[in-house]
Amino acid sequence: MGCPQDHATLATDVLIRADLRGIDSHGIARLIGYVRLWEQGRINATPDIRLIHETSSTGVVDGDGGLGLVVAPRAMQIAMEKAESAGTGWVAIKNSNHFGIAGYHAMMGLHQDMIGIALTNASPLVAPTFSTERMLGTNPIAVSIPAGQEPPFVADMATTTAANGKLEILQRQSREAPYGWIQDAQGDPSTNPHELKDGGALLPLGGDREHGSHKGYALGALVDILSAVLSGANYGPWAPPFVSFLPLAPDPVGEGLGHFVGAMRVDAFRPASEFKSNMDKWIRRFRSADAVEGKQVLIPGDPEREMEKVRTHEGIPVLGKVVDDLTQVADKFGVMLPEEE
Amino acid sequence: MGCPQDHATLATDVLIRADLRGIDSHGIARLIGYVRLWEQGRINATPDIRLIHETSSTGVVDGDGGLGLVVAPRAMQIAMEKAESAGTGWVAIKNSNHFGIAGYHAMMGLHQDMIGIALTNASPLVAPTFSTERMLGTNPIAVSIPAGQEPPFVADMATTTAANGKLEILQRQSREAPYGWIQDAQGDPSTNPHELKDGGALLPLGGDREHGSHKGYALGALVDILSAVLSGANYGPWAPPFVSFLPLAPDPVGEGLGHFVGAMRVDAFRPASEFKSNMDKWIRRFRSADAVEGKQVLIPGDPEREMEKVRTHEGIPVLGKVVDDLTQVADKFGVMLPEEE
Repeated sequence: MGCPQDHATLATDVLIRADLRGIDSHGIARLIGYVRLWEQGRINATPDIRLIHETSSTGVVDGDGGLGLVVAPRAMQIAMEKAESAGTGWVAIKNSNHFGIAGYHAMMGLHQDMIGIALTNASPLVAPTFSTERMLGTNPIAVSIPAGQEPPFVADMATTTAANGKLEILQRQSREAPYGWIQDAQGDPSTNPHELKDGGALLPLGGDREHGSHKGYALGALVDILSAVLSGANYGPWAPPFVSFLPLAPDPVGEGLGHFVGAMRVDAFRPASEFKSNMDKWIRRFRSADAVEGKQVLIPGDPEREMEKVRTHEGIPVLGKVVDDLTQVADKFGVMLPEEE
Repeated sequence: MGCPQDHATLATDVLIRADLRGIDSHGIARLIGYVRLWEQGRINATPDIRLIHETSSTGVVDGDGGLGLVVAPRAMQIAMEKAESAGTGWVAIKNSNHFGIAGYHAMMGLHQDMIGIALTNASPLVAPTFSTERMLGTNPIAVSIPAGQEPPFVADMATTTAANGKLEILQRQSREAPYGWIQDAQGDPSTNPHELKDGGALLPLGGDREHGSHKGYALGALVDILSAVLSGANYGPWAPPFVSFLPLAPDPVGEGLGHFVGAMRVDAFRPASEFKSNMDKWIRRFRSADAVEGKQVLIPGDPEREMEKVRTHEGIPVLGKVVDDLTQVADKFGVMLPEEE
């Protein structure tokens, strides 16, 4: 696509990391989608990523229409530099695109004993409580917290009951979705995983009002406001869709997609060794909490870390459909794919 | 109790504000609970609230065992002063007690065009996903965002499916709870609102694993870690219980209860007028989103603001039980209650 080598390397790292961690929906399966957006001129392969406003603990980055996979880590680097001097750093990003897994960016602070935070808005697929309209994205929240001898606490979650990737799995398997994941065009509960094609919507975490969907809606809204209203990107239903066959809103309220990243130096609060030994104690206590028969209490990040261990050794399984997509991309750019074993 | 006059005035303001906003569970109904904790020596009526560590954008406050109702606003004031100079301010608080409604503290930044954030850990009542043990409090998240001509966006929510106050209402009305709010001592779903007395637990937002309870658990855990591990307070199951008849943990891992507050100057990111006119646009677009028959999409904070309008004019209805409690407190301290009309 003409990306500078360092951008291509960074973007690849973000995508492969998603696959390693078992978040297949955000890994190399997305490559063809980024290429299609670039073909339509919606992604700038050679962006001039600039810090356009700052205070000692804040900044705003203009992504110049670049890949979010590249823009977000650059912004997180700025947040971490600010945290180094001011204790914390917070950067809002506009004029960007889909940034892959939020957890990648949040985890960047770990090796410097920083708590990392990454938020993004996304293609509108989610109906607020009482609404029949798709107004918000799956707007994830990722927070990464260092520990001492224990592995870190890494939460990385869509603010919906279920992420869109889970729905895609059910579609491929022709299985029904549980109640509370989606609604139909009239706002009634649905178990049809294809409902979004007929005007349905994903539901905020909680599912319905009685089970707290207004809280999931508020969380998704917070992510939207911090990512896009604070930075000057498009918010709510104006957020640019990831799929290239959907048009951009004709009346944009900002530039591109928005993100929000933050870094907090642990020792801006208490000595890092003290904090980390208490995190170890926190993690061990929760891991050993009384559990229901046959289960164990998990720490956020456990399943992804286990998967990363396995796939680092055994490789990443890739679906036939994804291999076809990658072959198509390789042909387009005259890249040789490795022979299948 | 011997509180200095300014502390008493501030604490009263926080409690009355909860009642005005319709959050009766956190208003003057709690007064007798605070008094009982003070009688047991668990609340210090004359605390020396001190900033014990700081960087330009962070601080740690030792509440000296004071009322959270007083300690948290003092800490928020420090966060706002830091935001004034550094763009943002973040204060972790240890050695505190129950701080009333989180929204009060978050909303302090509104009149200075700041986004305000308030978190706290609380009495352990919530079982993590797959657990039968009460490990977390209802650990609320409050975020307050200024708008221009529209009223502000104010989210203030427990990270559980339903707050404990909702359960208490069902208990008084002898009604069943919906599935997804509570579990019994074995970790099975329950609709008995008295289940917590028999070893049951509240459930994290999401309710069960299939509906995303691991996300509600992760949110509650984040609130616990930022409030208590970062500050040096007691975390998880060690958090001191609000009710005076439950003992403190014999092996504390920190001091008192913990909170975390933050303030972000809007114009540390973009001109306040620009931000606020976009917030107006955000709010109007969401308020006018297509809705299911007979409903309207709400903005977080709408119900509480409506209630505040009504109760400011019509007064606050107080249950007989609460009048009895207040009479008991008044007798104890030789305070005259106003005659009933």
